[in-house]
Amino acid sequence: MHATQLLSATVERAQERLLDTLEQMTVAEANTMPQPLIKSVTWLVWHTAREMDYQIADLKGIQPLWIRAGWSQKFALDLPDETQDWSHSPEEAAKVIIIDKALLIGYLADALQLTLDYLAEVTDESLLEIIDENWTPAVTREARLVSIVDDAVMHSGQAVYTRRMVMGK
Amino acid sequence: MHATQLLSATVERAQERLLDTLEQMTVAEANTMPQPLIKSVTWLVWHTAREMDYQIADLKGIQPLWIRAGWSQKFALDLPDETQDWSHSPEEAAKVIIIDKALLIGYLADALQLTLDYLAEVTDESLLEIIDENWTPAVTREARLVSIVDDAVMHSGQAVYTRRMVMGK
Repeated sequence: MHATQLLSATVERAQERLLDTLEQMTVAEANTMPQPLIKSVTWLVWHTAREMDYQIADLKGIQPLWIRAGWSQKFALDLPDETQDWSHSPEEAAKVIIIDKALLIGYLADALQLTLDYLAEVTDESLLEIIDENWTPAVTREARLVSIVDDAVMHSGQAVYTRRMVMGK
Repeated sequence: MHATQLLSATVERAQERLLDTLEQMTVAEANTMPQPLIKSVTWLVWHTAREMDYQIADLKGIQPLWIRAGWSQKFALDLPDETQDWSHSPEEAAKVIIIDKALLIGYLADALQLTLDYLAEVTDESLLEIIDENWTPAVTREARLVSIVDDAVMHSGQAVYTRRMVMGK
């Protein structure tokens, strides 16, 4: 049994929950931030895809799908590619709007596949390697992968709360 | 490397986030449901501990800590022990209130330790065993453990949103 197998199964739950949430909403509802500090479901799905995409791409030493697969052009957001989504102000977060849910579904699927492929190929030995010295303690590949999955699942739970606030059910 | 090691590290993130959220709030704030469909942080921490406790106890064939470690008496909620928290109405959820944060912190620590101990002792072979025939497809031990961790992390993300709504920051 591979050490990352259960982690892969866990991150797939995040996608399931996000897609289920999105399916219950119109595009206008998905784009709605119910309060300034509560992100829209559109933002949450986009950010979840992006945090996987950018962090796995960094681990692989390649360009994120956002750039190399053309998602930046397709979304055409009024934000720079290097926008720091994890610290978005309400005004920045409000700029993450879409006109077609297929865009979110496609980018999330692409980013998840990148993540699952990486989790399947990473070796047990490489999990203990330090990959980021900017933190104390230094971050191992294992800790970064756990963080990526934790973030995805955590945001999928938030999407359920945003949906309840926007739809009132 | 053990197959459940990264799952253990993931569920520890849920505890970290819940404790960090709780620390920022007074007891009265923690007990507040900001909207009927949005649970209080108290409810979210209690439920997260309880879902781990009851499901791991079931896998081990033992009584949950809620009963055998006396948490039921300590919390003294106006709810039966067998309350179905996952489908609580707003009125039922509002009954989950505490007068001391230490209670939540203690039960969460106890339930997490039960979970971590179980994850550390479960064998790779037993992960594929079917442990619940009531679903299609039937649930393996692996799928149940992933579900327990996913639920904990998902709720920890919701706690952050509840905190923002209650505190306005």
